[in-house]
Amino acid sequence: MITSLQNEKVKVAKALQTSAKFRRKEGKTVLEGTRLVRDALLAGHVPDFVMTQESFHDAQISGLLLKSHVKPLLVDDAVLAHISDTEHPQGIVAVFPLPQVKLPAGLNRILILDSIRDPGNLGTILRTAGAAGVGAVLLSPTCVDPYNPKVVRAGMGAHFRVPVAQFSWEHIQEACRHCAIYIASGDGQTLYDAVDWRSAWALIIGSEAHGVGDEALQLAQARIRIPMAAETESLNAAVAAGVILFEAAKHVVKP
Amino acid sequence: MITSLQNEKVKVAKALQTSAKFRRKEGKTVLEGTRLVRDALLAGHVPDFVMTQESFHDAQISGLLLKSHVKPLLVDDAVLAHISDTEHPQGIVAVFPLPQVKLPAGLNRILILDSIRDPGNLGTILRTAGAAGVGAVLLSPTCVDPYNPKVVRAGMGAHFRVPVAQFSWEHIQEACRHCAIYIASGDGQTLYDAVDWRSAWALIIGSEAHGVGDEALQLAQARIRIPMAAETESLNAAVAAGVILFEAAKHVVKP
Repeated sequence: MITSLQNEKVKVAKALQTSAKFRRKEGKTVLEGTRLVRDALLAGHVPDFVMTQESFHDAQISGLLLKSHVKPLLVDDAVLAHISDTEHPQGIVAVFPLPQVKLPAGLNRILILDSIRDPGNLGTILRTAGAAGVGAVLLSPTCVDPYNPKVVRAGMGAHFRVPVAQFSWEHIQEACRHCAIYIASGDGQTLYDAVDWRSAWALIIGSEAHGVGDEALQLAQARIRIPMAAETESLNAAVAAGVILFEAAKHVVKP
Repeated sequence: MITSLQNEKVKVAKALQTSAKFRRKEGKTVLEGTRLVRDALLAGHVPDFVMTQESFHDAQISGLLLKSHVKPLLVDDAVLAHISDTEHPQGIVAVFPLPQVKLPAGLNRILILDSIRDPGNLGTILRTAGAAGVGAVLLSPTCVDPYNPKVVRAGMGAHFRVPVAQFSWEHIQEACRHCAIYIASGDGQTLYDAVDWRSAWALIIGSEAHGVGDEALQLAQARIRIPMAAETESLNAAVAAGVILFEAAKHVVKP
């Protein structure tokens, strides 16, 4: 059983929890809790290592780890608390390589996020995008790191079911070259349910606090608007994304 | 200028920030920040008292206070920090009577919330309901206090534009007696966009963590579902509320 905070793997897990720079340098992220670890394993991801408390038991996770030939390392309670980012750790922390994002050639139904900096909000948006069945989520360079532990927790496993990538605006433009690009904006001329969602599309959602950036505005071909009950009203970015993405999801042409 | 934390009004403001029981007993709430105070004043609410830092200036708020015959009380920085619930206070804190909720006789388009306990999530749902133009939001007894400062902040002024009331289930049932009552549920049989939203309706949204309660299930006449990309997917309660409420908003019969 690992009991020292100086253990190399313990130090790696801790650094991955706290440093976006270290996550990028190592190309790894840390997941904790039964649900997230299970989702990643079910999606076929193989962890570098897994640490569990002696009291942790989950038959499904044990079976999935056995299949991946990964033997969990036992750690004591103090070590688990040290490498956990949550108030009530669930007894399991796992280090995974960052998912390799391969964008398909005919990429369609793309959500582009501009300057979303609140981790909980970004996670909720990723979760929403996963549920609405988008093809990929592309993040502008000014978004918070999508592998920030708070983002991953709020994402509820969406990171492992939808391609998520942080790109330059040039790279975003290149990825969306076959799509009509819309931007959600309070002063949009087109209503969100009047858009032709059957053709290939990309949707830009900006942050509430920082508004919509110049790069996003230049990329967009049309501004679309959700009609509100009164002019003073506005929507949280995740709710706005949900309203538009589920409208678009109605128009997916079933193969 | 008030400089003592023992000042009676300072003690009242502080207690309103921290105690739901005190808010209910006094029938008052405390708002802070330019936007919230302005929204409440614009909606015609008259504060008991307003405290500002010497550096605070907002011409619109000054004009509105003058019209209400309320003279702001100057407080020093330490007092303002003491009665503020935020990390970066905006220089103004105001105590208002709780809005008197009068539900109209023909109440329609009602959002019912069951056991929403996360303050930020409740505030985001209230904001969404306001933007979607619901007639009222009714909270089950197990929801967090809607006048919790975190709820009010996330609500972005919705509290002053939409009737919000916390009722017993009997009272909720009575208020919805003319409505078809739907409940959002992952296993719902009816798709959310196949509902007749032109007739009077009430929609129940439950908490993710605590699921849907027995009282809510008994009250509902039909379970409705948002179709997801995969079975493992689910939505944040505020996003689910947004997707359904904005679908319903499309069917408002314009007078």
